[in-house]
Amino acid sequence: MPSQPASGPTFHPETPAGRFLAVRRRTLDLVRGLSDADCTVQSMPDASPAKWHLAHTTWFFETFLLRAADPAHPLFDERYPRLFNSYYESLGPRHPRPQRGLLTRPALPEVIAYRESIDRAVQALLAAGRLDAAGLETLALGLAHEEQHQELLLSDLLHLFAQNPLRPALAPALPAPDTHYTNGDLPVTGWERHDEAIVEIGAGTEGFAFDCERPRHRVLVPAFALARRPVSNGEWMAFIEDRGYANPLLWRADGWDDCCAQRWAAPLYWERSDDEGWQAMTLHGMRPVDPLAPVAHVSWYEADAYATWAGKRLPTEFEWERAAAGRPVEGHFADHPQRTPQAMRADDGELQQLYGGVWEWTASAYSPYPGFRAAPGAVGEYNGKFMAGQYVLRGGSCFTPPTHLRASYRNFFHPDKRWQASGLRLAEDI
Amino acid sequence: MPSQPASGPTFHPETPAGRFLAVRRRTLDLVRGLSDADCTVQSMPDASPAKWHLAHTTWFFETFLLRAADPAHPLFDERYPRLFNSYYESLGPRHPRPQRGLLTRPALPEVIAYRESIDRAVQALLAAGRLDAAGLETLALGLAHEEQHQELLLSDLLHLFAQNPLRPALAPALPAPDTHYTNGDLPVTGWERHDEAIVEIGAGTEGFAFDCERPRHRVLVPAFALARRPVSNGEWMAFIEDRGYANPLLWRADGWDDCCAQRWAAPLYWERSDDEGWQAMTLHGMRPVDPLAPVAHVSWYEADAYATWAGKRLPTEFEWERAAAGRPVEGHFADHPQRTPQAMRADDGELQQLYGGVWEWTASAYSPYPGFRAAPGAVGEYNGKFMAGQYVLRGGSCFTPPTHLRASYRNFFHPDKRWQASGLRLAEDI
Amino acid sequence: MPSQPASGPTFHPETPAGRFLAVRRRTLDLVRGLSDADCTVQSMPDASPAKWHLAHTTWFFETFLLRAADPAHPLFDERYPRLFNSYYESLGPRHPRPQRGLLTRPALPEVIAYRESIDRAVQALLAAGRLDAAGLETLALGLAHEEQHQELLLSDLLHLFAQNPLRPALAPALPAPDTHYTNGDLPVTGWERHDEAIVEIGAGTEGFAFDCERPRHRVLVPAFALARRPVSNGEWMAFIEDRGYANPLLWRADGWDDCCAQRWAAPLYWERSDDEGWQAMTLHGMRPVDPLAPVAHVSWYEADAYATWAGKRLPTEFEWERAAAGRPVEGHFADHPQRTPQAMRADDGELQQLYGGVWEWTASAYSPYPGFRAAPGAVGEYNGKFMAGQYVLRGGSCFTPPTHLRASYRNFFHPDKRWQASGLRLAEDI
Amino acid sequence: MPSQPASGPTFHPETPAGRFLAVRRRTLDLVRGLSDADCTVQSMPDASPAKWHLAHTTWFFETFLLRAADPAHPLFDERYPRLFNSYYESLGPRHPRPQRGLLTRPALPEVIAYRESIDRAVQALLAAGRLDAAGLETLALGLAHEEQHQELLLSDLLHLFAQNPLRPALAPALPAPDTHYTNGDLPVTGWERHDEAIVEIGAGTEGFAFDCERPRHRVLVPAFALARRPVSNGEWMAFIEDRGYANPLLWRADGWDDCCAQRWAAPLYWERSDDEGWQAMTLHGMRPVDPLAPVAHVSWYEADAYATWAGKRLPTEFEWERAAAGRPVEGHFADHPQRTPQAMRADDGELQQLYGGVWEWTASAYSPYPGFRAAPGAVGEYNGKFMAGQYVLRGGSCFTPPTHLRASYRNFFHPDKRWQASGLRLAEDI
Repeated sequence: MPSQPASGPTFHPETPAGRFLAVRRRTLDLVRGLSDADCTVQSMPDASPAKWHLAHTTWFFETFLLRAADPAHPLFDERYPRLFNSYYESLGPRHPRPQRGLLTRPALPEVIAYRESIDRAVQALLAAGRLDAAGLETLALGLAHEEQHQELLLSDLLHLFAQNPLRPALAPALPAPDTHYTNGDLPVTGWERHDEAIVEIGAGTEGFAFDCERPRHRVLVPAFALARRPVSNGEWMAFIEDRGYANPLLWRADGWDDCCAQRWAAPLYWERSDDEGWQAMTLHGMRPVDPLAPVAHVSWYEADAYATWAGKRLPTEFEWERAAAGRPVEGHFADHPQRTPQAMRADDGELQQLYGGVWEWTASAYSPYPGFRAAPGAVGEYNGKFMAGQYVLRGGSCFTPPTHLRASYRNFFHPDKRWQASGLRLAEDI
Repeated sequence: MPSQPASGPTFHPETPAGRFLAVRRRTLDLVRGLSDADCTVQSMPDASPAKWHLAHTTWFFETFLLRAADPAHPLFDERYPRLFNSYYESLGPRHPRPQRGLLTRPALPEVIAYRESIDRAVQALLAAGRLDAAGLETLALGLAHEEQHQELLLSDLLHLFAQNPLRPALAPALPAPDTHYTNGDLPVTGWERHDEAIVEIGAGTEGFAFDCERPRHRVLVPAFALARRPVSNGEWMAFIEDRGYANPLLWRADGWDDCCAQRWAAPLYWERSDDEGWQAMTLHGMRPVDPLAPVAHVSWYEADAYATWAGKRLPTEFEWERAAAGRPVEGHFADHPQRTPQAMRADDGELQQLYGGVWEWTASAYSPYPGFRAAPGAVGEYNGKFMAGQYVLRGGSCFTPPTHLRASYRNFFHPDKRWQASGLRLAEDI
Repeated sequence: MPSQPASGPTFHPETPAGRFLAVRRRTLDLVRGLSDADCTVQSMPDASPAKWHLAHTTWFFETFLLRAADPAHPLFDERYPRLFNSYYESLGPRHPRPQRGLLTRPALPEVIAYRESIDRAVQALLAAGRLDAAGLETLALGLAHEEQHQELLLSDLLHLFAQNPLRPALAPALPAPDTHYTNGDLPVTGWERHDEAIVEIGAGTEGFAFDCERPRHRVLVPAFALARRPVSNGEWMAFIEDRGYANPLLWRADGWDDCCAQRWAAPLYWERSDDEGWQAMTLHGMRPVDPLAPVAHVSWYEADAYATWAGKRLPTEFEWERAAAGRPVEGHFADHPQRTPQAMRADDGELQQLYGGVWEWTASAYSPYPGFRAAPGAVGEYNGKFMAGQYVLRGGSCFTPPTHLRASYRNFFHPDKRWQASGLRLAEDI
Repeated sequence: MPSQPASGPTFHPETPAGRFLAVRRRTLDLVRGLSDADCTVQSMPDASPAKWHLAHTTWFFETFLLRAADPAHPLFDERYPRLFNSYYESLGPRHPRPQRGLLTRPALPEVIAYRESIDRAVQALLAAGRLDAAGLETLALGLAHEEQHQELLLSDLLHLFAQNPLRPALAPALPAPDTHYTNGDLPVTGWERHDEAIVEIGAGTEGFAFDCERPRHRVLVPAFALARRPVSNGEWMAFIEDRGYANPLLWRADGWDDCCAQRWAAPLYWERSDDEGWQAMTLHGMRPVDPLAPVAHVSWYEADAYATWAGKRLPTEFEWERAAAGRPVEGHFADHPQRTPQAMRADDGELQQLYGGVWEWTASAYSPYPGFRAAPGAVGEYNGKFMAGQYVLRGGSCFTPPTHLRASYRNFFHPDKRWQASGLRLAEDI
């Protein structure tokens, strides 16, 4: 169990130093209550051990901030870069990703000591005012990077615990939602209409954004309507009952192959028992599936098949961003003690759960924006090399840190991935 | 060896009956000189036997034309639909695709008899004027479909013959090009500049086009420049010599995985010998690689890595179509006796080999156009279900039938596929 | 279809030349009626195309007889050794086994011309009396080798045709056996008892035998009883009905893994229909399973599980050889027009179908006899290198040439293989 | 780190209770100094986590002793049988073997509490004298079973630590052997000759032995000579230098396939550096390879190829047992602080390291002895179901508990396995 200082330095949260400390502490908070073993095991090649997330995010600051600022800065441990580099080909050989879970050493306390050492060095750098503008940008990148790993840490931990027949919980179960398990509870969604327009897409030059969100550029978006809320678990049950997982005509060809090969018959983590109906594994253990909450842990292929079944389609990322533009980034994020999506309310004419809750798959392949250029150097490997074969998700989830999102934020995964808190919102042509 | 009538009925090539006859005969012409064994074997799951192409295209007319027009129309052989349905899930069980090459029966003469029987029935239908507008549309679809299989038949045959150490040739070797094997022969390409504009993309409502080319719609295309010719073999040799296949920083992550796992080090079919330099397997046997001809048989991943290496990028399919709009569909197609790309000329200010020669990979994922809806019924499986994980190619190749193409034509393959005559043309932002 | 001389040279069948001619002609007889395609396709990596068998056996004589006798003997085609060497590592690179079916060229007539050319050269060598004792031994080895490939050719062809939904037949169907589909038809087997004894096992120094049958040596064989006939199809149906394929306690651990992974539920080629009960694919097409005939196409794992279910065990190869010693080599071999096992008779106190019908799996791993040494040179690769992980079968089958067998004959396959005509005979301790 | 009572009950080691306590304590001793994570991770499907070994051996006593004696005996935890049953098909569903490493819960302290609870119950049973003869046999079986898992625990831990680039050590490194790295140091072995004889093989009816060692029976063993010591690391280096890993003629066919596919070029855990020559991973970290010590961590395929290279062969298990009969069971076992094989001495006419040091692969497939019958019930799954496809090893290793062995003891593994301390001793025909 990670040691934690009873009290520590305090900084103004709006300063770089304050933000650094807050983000770093939040990562450690996530593993509170976990054992060294919990933090060491890797449940599949897509996932990483919690300990690895703790160390890799630290390596990022050591490599791109400390040693970029001062190449003579000594490594905490000369063997760590090989272990904790994720995928930066330009930074030398790496421990193979599928074998991250074999690293029982360094143990969790050693990794925490690594974190503390790097934290002190970064704080000293900040206190000394020795970071220039480029350094501050790297700091912001490192913090955004760490927030991404906070989300992955939770997703990966859920996947690990779901493999264990004991079904451990990260946190005590919350009270079961007071719901009735009929599919008709939640009225059908309303639709928000948008006329054709040329809209500005992407992040502007001010403030932090990932390179893939830039450059901001103009896109002609045809008229469309967007559902005011994500698809619910109750609606997904109707899809299952209507044999959506058995009808190839609803599916893309590659998705149907995966559906058959993997024997998909419900969202990941759902299990049905005669006594209790649909239950799902969550970070609070096995819980009844709430028909009023947005469906989560579906792949793009499933989301797309659902949309076809419903006679609708997924929105493009441009449609989503157009609808989101100017709206506050509020929702159910990882700072909430319930780490599973929450029930929606009946349609009241407003967009619901646009941010938080579940990531929303879009119809858009993850591609570079016009004029995109990867940054020179290792940092240029951050996003560009993933721009093939993946789909964009928008909006964030209940695993996403609250300070992490923007309207222009682009998350991306391969269309067969299900272990993120990924759901969908429908769109249609008008 | 397929029997062939010394003479047969003639029709005006502009009539449906004339076009039907011409396309059907052209398919048979492709297998002239091949043995039953050549036409039966399948060299990999992506490829199909020539005999299967001959039968499947016939099944298409039998199913969607004859039996759609008259459900009582008797099947030529009740066992054939199971064998020769390709991927229409709604039409019942199918012989598994990877096992198409195990069908030594029906033998080639039986398949040709199947073709002749269906041809007579279709011709009778046409002669009797019993096809309505919808039927004529299906006829046009069937012919376009058969033309696609003509191209696949050639690609698949090349792949088969390339696996045989004897390196058989479909046709006698043409005279070797008179080329000098230096990389500097072909001057660098010139560029055609286009300003930002809103352009019409896709096929209009007149004439035949595949459903994926519609609906025609407006797209905002930013300013760009397009290379006046495809990338040449000589330029590709420079990429190899500069260790392009060994530098992960040039590649998308998934592409690099494939490059390593498949040990890619040159385009498919290229082999290097100390004596003779680069040679490549072609439908005319092993031939020297012509540095002046466009590179072929590269995957999207390779094309994209090359573009990164060159400091450029692939064009979007919209950029390509904008440049092609209004230009004549002329080039080096499958009606030419040389079935391998031909040398390009020095830049003279005109776009070269826009159509024919090699398919050009674009930066665009194969996605539905705004407002696209798959047709109801089995024909609706034609294109829509492949709209995930694939990339669009434009322009046609030396394996494409000459009457098959349009400016709006969208071909598509997964980004790791190399057995088509696929190359690339560069673009850049301006 | 292979051309065949209307008449040819005749030799006394007891002379080497006569035996050579007879064996070589018999191979060609096996492919009579097959197309080039039938002879070219490979249905799985374990199987080889008929054309490959025709060529490989010819390469064997060319390599080990003609060129061993005269190293200056010109190759028929310099490219053939690479194509038609099977597994002799010491003889240079080989076309990969799983890709034998991609060799549409050389075509069947070319392979037959290859056979004819080598046959003439061997006959000239024999006519000239230029073969010494070692050469005559090689000739005998080459003929025994060719007979093994005759059996494989039939097994492989059956496997190929079984993959084709048209279920082609090599020869017209024989009249269906007049049997009643009850399991009780065939009385239980009687048992032949043998007391403990030290017995001579293996081939003596006289006459042809494979190296693995030597040296002859003494073995202490404990007392045992051997079933007087193989296990029947009817008995196997009872095993199926008693859920033998669903009870892991009957199976070796590796066999159970294969049973589950491959979904074995009956012998290879068996299919059940509600109308017609058990049918099986044979070289005569789909035929009803005869409950009175020995079961065939079961793996060692299945045979062993059956024996456990029956409360018995498989015999060791020593037990089998002891029982066979001195008995005539008679039975149902490949010279019979019915190429599927035949019904057994009620027990009359005599061993039935000891030779022919089905190969009988033994409990013996295929291991070297005491004092075994592989021959020097490439021929030494013939048997010894397979002495790991395989089990011995004894007795021959209805696919085995009639002149091929001896009491000491050891056939061998991996315990999961099912495409040979392999069955079993029970034994028990007494 | 496992808690351990400072002092505990003492029993006379010769009583069942004393032996029980000693064996159970020894298992816990093995994990002293390991973290929960070290004990949880599984490095490959063949291996199991240390924690799993601790729990599974406990489940064995709970199931076969406590609950067999009293079916009403309550389970320690109702969920544990599913987690800790290894392969007993008759005892219900099991957590899949390749996923044993995903069980971060129960944590190590919980597993130790499980052990303590079962230990107390067994001790109470023994103290009350409530075990009859069959119960005492099961107790002996459970202790022998636990000793097998002690050996596996060490083998599996070595494999896990070898995957970690940090190369952790279970115990501090011992002083490096004072050896010179030439291959000629150790004189060639002498040979012990045995004439042909009928010998008694297997365990008699007295005392504990595994079922596979019985029944004792007579075997005719031809004359042979046995090397007086195992093959040394120095001799193995000569095999490597003579390109033993590159010469297919030395290998069985299946072994050569594995050698190529797995890229074997030295024993498992060996690494060569220009500076330091051959080093190997051990439970004491990376250590120089001692040319005087027996080679370890070679597969049967490698051992057999070595024997062929040396012009000798592996002994049969009967030859080994004949030579061992009557000799004391002494050697280098797991009670020694050096957990890696030790140097041999020059030949002095005596058999060296017959027991302990390294397991010795034999030429014998693991088969049932004449008259073998698996026991009824779940315990019958102990050995019989593995009697296919595996080879017998004899003699024990430096990972084997000292009280575990007998002359009749049969260990067995598949011929491609290398993670046990497996070596070889040569034999030859005379």
